[in-house]
Amino acid sequence: MNDHPSGEEVNRVDCLGTAGVPSPLRLAPKYREGMPSFVSDKTRILLNIELRSDEEFGRGESFEKAGPRAELYFQPAQTKAAIVTCGGLCPGLNNVIRSAFLELYHNYGVQQIWGIRYGYAGLDPRNGFPPVRLTEELVDAIHNDGGTLLGSSRGRVDPAIMVDFLAQEKFDIVLTVGGDGTTRGALALAEEIQRRQLKIAVVGVPKTIDNDIPYVDPSFGFATAVARARDILDSAHAEAKGAPYGIGLVKLMGREAGFIAACATLASQQVNFCLVPEQRLVLEGDRGFLEVLRRRMLDRKHAVIALAEGAGQELFGETPKEVDASGNVKLHDIGALLRTRIVEYMAERGPKVNLKYIEPSYYIRSVPANATDALLCDSFARHAVHAAMAGKTAVIIGYWNNKFVHVPMRTVVGQKRRLHLHSDLWRSVLATTGQPSTFGPLG
Amino acid sequence: MNDHPSGEEVNRVDCLGTAGVPSPLRLAPKYREGMPSFVSDKTRILLNIELRSDEEFGRGESFEKAGPRAELYFQPAQTKAAIVTCGGLCPGLNNVIRSAFLELYHNYGVQQIWGIRYGYAGLDPRNGFPPVRLTEELVDAIHNDGGTLLGSSRGRVDPAIMVDFLAQEKFDIVLTVGGDGTTRGALALAEEIQRRQLKIAVVGVPKTIDNDIPYVDPSFGFATAVARARDILDSAHAEAKGAPYGIGLVKLMGREAGFIAACATLASQQVNFCLVPEQRLVLEGDRGFLEVLRRRMLDRKHAVIALAEGAGQELFGETPKEVDASGNVKLHDIGALLRTRIVEYMAERGPKVNLKYIEPSYYIRSVPANATDALLCDSFARHAVHAAMAGKTAVIIGYWNNKFVHVPMRTVVGQKRRLHLHSDLWRSVLATTGQPSTFGPLG
Amino acid sequence: MNDHPSGEEVNRVDCLGTAGVPSPLRLAPKYREGMPSFVSDKTRILLNIELRSDEEFGRGESFEKAGPRAELYFQPAQTKAAIVTCGGLCPGLNNVIRSAFLELYHNYGVQQIWGIRYGYAGLDPRNGFPPVRLTEELVDAIHNDGGTLLGSSRGRVDPAIMVDFLAQEKFDIVLTVGGDGTTRGALALAEEIQRRQLKIAVVGVPKTIDNDIPYVDPSFGFATAVARARDILDSAHAEAKGAPYGIGLVKLMGREAGFIAACATLASQQVNFCLVPEQRLVLEGDRGFLEVLRRRMLDRKHAVIALAEGAGQELFGETPKEVDASGNVKLHDIGALLRTRIVEYMAERGPKVNLKYIEPSYYIRSVPANATDALLCDSFARHAVHAAMAGKTAVIIGYWNNKFVHVPMRTVVGQKRRLHLHSDLWRSVLATTGQPSTFGPLG
Amino acid sequence: MNDHPSGEEVNRVDCLGTAGVPSPLRLAPKYREGMPSFVSDKTRILLNIELRSDEEFGRGESFEKAGPRAELYFQPAQTKAAIVTCGGLCPGLNNVIRSAFLELYHNYGVQQIWGIRYGYAGLDPRNGFPPVRLTEELVDAIHNDGGTLLGSSRGRVDPAIMVDFLAQEKFDIVLTVGGDGTTRGALALAEEIQRRQLKIAVVGVPKTIDNDIPYVDPSFGFATAVARARDILDSAHAEAKGAPYGIGLVKLMGREAGFIAACATLASQQVNFCLVPEQRLVLEGDRGFLEVLRRRMLDRKHAVIALAEGAGQELFGETPKEVDASGNVKLHDIGALLRTRIVEYMAERGPKVNLKYIEPSYYIRSVPANATDALLCDSFARHAVHAAMAGKTAVIIGYWNNKFVHVPMRTVVGQKRRLHLHSDLWRSVLATTGQPSTFGPLG
Repeated sequence: MNDHPSGEEVNRVDCLGTAGVPSPLRLAPKYREGMPSFVSDKTRILLNIELRSDEEFGRGESFEKAGPRAELYFQPAQTKAAIVTCGGLCPGLNNVIRSAFLELYHNYGVQQIWGIRYGYAGLDPRNGFPPVRLTEELVDAIHNDGGTLLGSSRGRVDPAIMVDFLAQEKFDIVLTVGGDGTTRGALALAEEIQRRQLKIAVVGVPKTIDNDIPYVDPSFGFATAVARARDILDSAHAEAKGAPYGIGLVKLMGREAGFIAACATLASQQVNFCLVPEQRLVLEGDRGFLEVLRRRMLDRKHAVIALAEGAGQELFGETPKEVDASGNVKLHDIGALLRTRIVEYMAERGPKVNLKYIEPSYYIRSVPANATDALLCDSFARHAVHAAMAGKTAVIIGYWNNKFVHVPMRTVVGQKRRLHLHSDLWRSVLATTGQPSTFGPLG
Repeated sequence: MNDHPSGEEVNRVDCLGTAGVPSPLRLAPKYREGMPSFVSDKTRILLNIELRSDEEFGRGESFEKAGPRAELYFQPAQTKAAIVTCGGLCPGLNNVIRSAFLELYHNYGVQQIWGIRYGYAGLDPRNGFPPVRLTEELVDAIHNDGGTLLGSSRGRVDPAIMVDFLAQEKFDIVLTVGGDGTTRGALALAEEIQRRQLKIAVVGVPKTIDNDIPYVDPSFGFATAVARARDILDSAHAEAKGAPYGIGLVKLMGREAGFIAACATLASQQVNFCLVPEQRLVLEGDRGFLEVLRRRMLDRKHAVIALAEGAGQELFGETPKEVDASGNVKLHDIGALLRTRIVEYMAERGPKVNLKYIEPSYYIRSVPANATDALLCDSFARHAVHAAMAGKTAVIIGYWNNKFVHVPMRTVVGQKRRLHLHSDLWRSVLATTGQPSTFGPLG
Repeated sequence: MNDHPSGEEVNRVDCLGTAGVPSPLRLAPKYREGMPSFVSDKTRILLNIELRSDEEFGRGESFEKAGPRAELYFQPAQTKAAIVTCGGLCPGLNNVIRSAFLELYHNYGVQQIWGIRYGYAGLDPRNGFPPVRLTEELVDAIHNDGGTLLGSSRGRVDPAIMVDFLAQEKFDIVLTVGGDGTTRGALALAEEIQRRQLKIAVVGVPKTIDNDIPYVDPSFGFATAVARARDILDSAHAEAKGAPYGIGLVKLMGREAGFIAACATLASQQVNFCLVPEQRLVLEGDRGFLEVLRRRMLDRKHAVIALAEGAGQELFGETPKEVDASGNVKLHDIGALLRTRIVEYMAERGPKVNLKYIEPSYYIRSVPANATDALLCDSFARHAVHAAMAGKTAVIIGYWNNKFVHVPMRTVVGQKRRLHLHSDLWRSVLATTGQPSTFGPLG
Repeated sequence: MNDHPSGEEVNRVDCLGTAGVPSPLRLAPKYREGMPSFVSDKTRILLNIELRSDEEFGRGESFEKAGPRAELYFQPAQTKAAIVTCGGLCPGLNNVIRSAFLELYHNYGVQQIWGIRYGYAGLDPRNGFPPVRLTEELVDAIHNDGGTLLGSSRGRVDPAIMVDFLAQEKFDIVLTVGGDGTTRGALALAEEIQRRQLKIAVVGVPKTIDNDIPYVDPSFGFATAVARARDILDSAHAEAKGAPYGIGLVKLMGREAGFIAACATLASQQVNFCLVPEQRLVLEGDRGFLEVLRRRMLDRKHAVIALAEGAGQELFGETPKEVDASGNVKLHDIGALLRTRIVEYMAERGPKVNLKYIEPSYYIRSVPANATDALLCDSFARHAVHAAMAGKTAVIIGYWNNKFVHVPMRTVVGQKRRLHLHSDLWRSVLATTGQPSTFGPLG
């Protein structure tokens, strides 16, 4: 199956004919805000996305393919490598640490491999968290544990201090595992290294439980998070059906992208409303969320709501200004707002509801990686090692259209991948939940 | 993030320079049979793989994108649809049945939806398995169960008989869920329908626990199978370490493709030898598998072997001729052979081993879909419905480079997707297991 | 093994002798409040606890053994039975409903079996929740789901109204599934029935996720709750180790009895402090909880705390007076108090901690029963049916010393089983956590 | 709830009266071989089974209660202890090793704690498996793994050799973890020690995945085994329903006792026939198993059979004579026999069946302990340490009527606890499966 079939054969799709029956699906004929649209027969997907020679360039944008290079920049026997995990927990951190260690140690023969404690904080010696030497014994079984062997932290450290430390300790390679804030820090680090004309490679393994880093889809930990979130949505369903007029309201991760809420909704199939940051949330009015929910309660006596934490921020008026240590804007608490408004609204107009509010984030993000993620972590980690050994720097390992690639850090810093409201995924969410494609007055 | 960044920014990957250190990884400098090769910096992966207008054609082969069409071929209110599941069990069959039903019923408004019992056998009235009318109550909770609500069977039925039945019962749509044998049957069915100039759409949802159908990657059920196989490899590891000179030998699915064995090996990280059909298996000789295993036993006192059922068929001399009801060639029993030869070989030369042989196929394939597969099943099923309602026929739903597409049945019938020995996946397997990249005398 | 061995053989335990070395374990020589005590060689456990004839009576208190009787009170073919589930969710409710139905229907041949909706509320026709007829189809797969098919509610209904309804609908048997409040209601119901000289049997299946009903140990759902709580404690451990000076504080069920917190602590082995209602909680002072925790944080840099919701109520001064619909006193929020005080205390004296607060009750109690509980539910339900068919009334099914027994409702109403601080269980908790046997100044 | 209520209150069970309706349950009026019998109202269960003073003796047989003693035989600081795991794998072995280590090390202050490798084989220095020093680091996370850190083996070693080794290495305490063969070895060891007037305590933690050791109920690992077996029975159910006339035949553990098969049957609720060693299996004849199965197949089109490996041995004529290394008689392969006979019988008389044969023992026994077993393991291990430190020897830790006790090894060696056919458990199995209480011609 190495050779793809010829175009003629593939292009011709049999069709009984065109009766021109208008589809009853509630989709937009063209793209419209918040509504999935129909697909044309003329939209096509390329079979082969890998280009092997220079001549083929110009066909479109492309990434450098990741993988082991025949020639390296570093002499393995003299190389000293560091691994650092940053930001919030995510399933698979220990798998990444372990596979990076094993690739460096067993396959390349690197002897000096160190773990930086508690994120970037461990690169500032004033914090008193000295690096730990990684060994086969130490990493042997860690992939069965959630969390991170090394500890993590949020917050930035002055690149100058980090470079001082790395130079003094004679590190050649730094593998960072983290999200947007971490990549921003890694890029600053790489730039400071470049400024000093040092030869230290900085390669990032992208980590985002929200699955919102560009050119990384899926990110590791996401499948595990969705699986766990599904279990909790099923629990919420049991709670909702277990009491008269029961509502299960589950606040899930998803600051700027609703992928966890959307995918867990599809996996569970028990959710009636999936609320994501990408879609405007209108609570009041005859077609507002509250009234739509009320009608469902009267009709079906129970409801399950999957709520991404970043949904409905526009309801709070002005944008929140405060930021946390990772540089993330502190979100308004949409869970608390919704919980209160639902109970009030139903108390006023009936029926009186039994609302159970569930906020399981810690329990979702701290579990061991499932098999799907274990596999993914292994690949991300080994590709990061390949890149670093070849001297690549200021790149993260991307995963795009099923291929691992080198993505320059500057391409993704400050960018977020978001759920398209006209994507297959969102279309399926609407179909599964039966929720309206927009809340509030029709455009 | 809708607009991809410009080529200049993406193309430039920072690199510390080219020291030209030869890599210690045991890979082939160019493609060579059975050896993963190094990646060149010039190999690139396209960012955008979707083409939206005719003009763009000619850039390479492409598939028609799947999804709901604005105009349908069938009038939903008058449409009568059938769903049939064929071949061996696979996690997610019930999810596919349920989502196809829900899409037809709730979204399109199709009222007449029937389940065919026991595969194609249920399309031959002489077998006495009349179709069952699907309802919301019937499918409500089936996605939590393994197996298939409808039952399944192997074996072909004369297309003429099936078309007689479909025509007599006035079916408009047949959704088949099955593997290569099923697609072959579905294509024959579609061709017979065409011959009679009937207007019945035949659309396939590809089912292969081996993940070996072209242009379908991953197939539904595969993630669940890998997860379950990982658990069993971990059990085998406990058994192997639990006895002096213990060996855990696990025979997994994988008739022609070793994806389950390879991916479960990566997910488990406890496997020492992964044997797949794509790689020639040499047992005897100083670099043969048995001697390599023996040296490990002396060194580490235990070993875990993940064996795909289709591995080592060349050891049996002539190709097996017998076929089963699905048209699959009956494989020689490599598990029994290996089990015997390992025990004999070690008894002769030492050490005497404690071999535990595990053959868990039924237990892997009959479990409910995990969250990852639940999602995938939902998409496959809904896209099959979209295709059928639009009048597409003789197509299966493909999933290629993260996109759902229409793949003509004739493109894939008789084809298998196989694991490339120079792929990232196999390279990671070699790195994780530490096994040699080939057994037997060096080429 | 039917006949127990003779006393002589069993009594003689070989011992190397008595060196009289004082034990270093931190236990009390005799019973003292809050301290487990040593066991004497003279304390003995009876082998046989079943008495088969009248003569043997007088040896101690005993319960009537549960089980099927040869003669029944009700004619199965004419019997009409109701099942009602009350109070909060608990794993296994659906298993109880299903097994009670199957025992009544298949084994006794009772045809009229009805499910009461939403607890006792469904026995008051004014609420508009009519009973649902139970069938094989309806209950077929419910044991795989959490929650309760019938719905539940808290709160009492006037016994007179319930008896009116039962008499009018000609019910012969009412099986109640619920906790102390439910048993209180069931006893009132049975007494009202007796007052009217009706022949309706009321039999209770005890339900308590806290495992605190006398003569019921373990109660169904408890093993599942402990298993889930263990998972969450493991998550809290990952969170605690994942940040500098991390603390995982998990608030578990346990209003008056700390069994879930204690057993989950033992199952997890990752907990450093287990706080239960049975033990006085002293926060302040040099031997108070906060200072003991602080010393651990300085020493080990992380801590996990399993907190039963009923712990430390004495810290709030006067007893709470408010009661919920089930008649349970509304507890003060010890979780919120502890969370605040820990952060404050550490901020004052150092180190500054990263506290993650987890409150997982809804997703502990709403999951399907695990295998251990599935078995237990089956037995409780069938014994309840046996008792009711024999005309027993105002009893619950007890499970004491591994035997199912009939426990009069009046014996247990208003009583709670509590964790003994000098029990094996608590001793093991102290040994596992390493926490002091008391907080605060030494007596 | 410390004080039990008075007898009067407890004794009086309300009953509507005695209508004398004969029960339709198919039970024996009195005990009859192979049939559960009815329970009399006069059978009673003692509330209190613990005797605290000498005076109370004579009430019946009793065991010495386990637990920490105030005075020890060994000086902890000078004590050297060994732990050895023997026989087949069982969930929880690592938990036992870990908790025994932690109790010895942290609570008693024993410094010298060693693990014996590969069972008794590690006590014979000629085998070349020297003991491994146990440390906190080594045991830290082992409770999350199946198998045993120390390895295990079957087979006996000359007690004289073992005592030579123990004496030479100056061990004071040996904790054995194993089944009947292990206890037999441990008793021989203790007797040889006594003969030489050495002061070495030998204490056993009973291990039996079959749950068949007298006075140990449940044994550790059993709950996990039942849970896993349930999953596999559910898989078999999916397989059975997935094909026309499908049969899922699962061979489970249970050499002499059918507890796993019976309990997994109850937990699964999907089993139609549960075949155990305690009940005679008659295959042929109009009321034989084959014909009963055939009638079910015609009626319901599928069946699931849970088969204990020790069932139906009488079908093979003479008793098997060969024994394995553990001294267990090698069983005839009832699974193979049944599989063949079922297919033959149905082929002859119809319907032709699709039989799936599953033999999952290795992946039932090698998994990590679930929460229920984790708890149990912790208690068994700590009680074994308490007993040994107090100088008890030639005892195993029993668990009887919910209490941990000291059971002299000579009381249990060569004895097996078996499932009573007139127990609650078997009665529930018959009720759940609907299978006849006996196969073959009526007595």
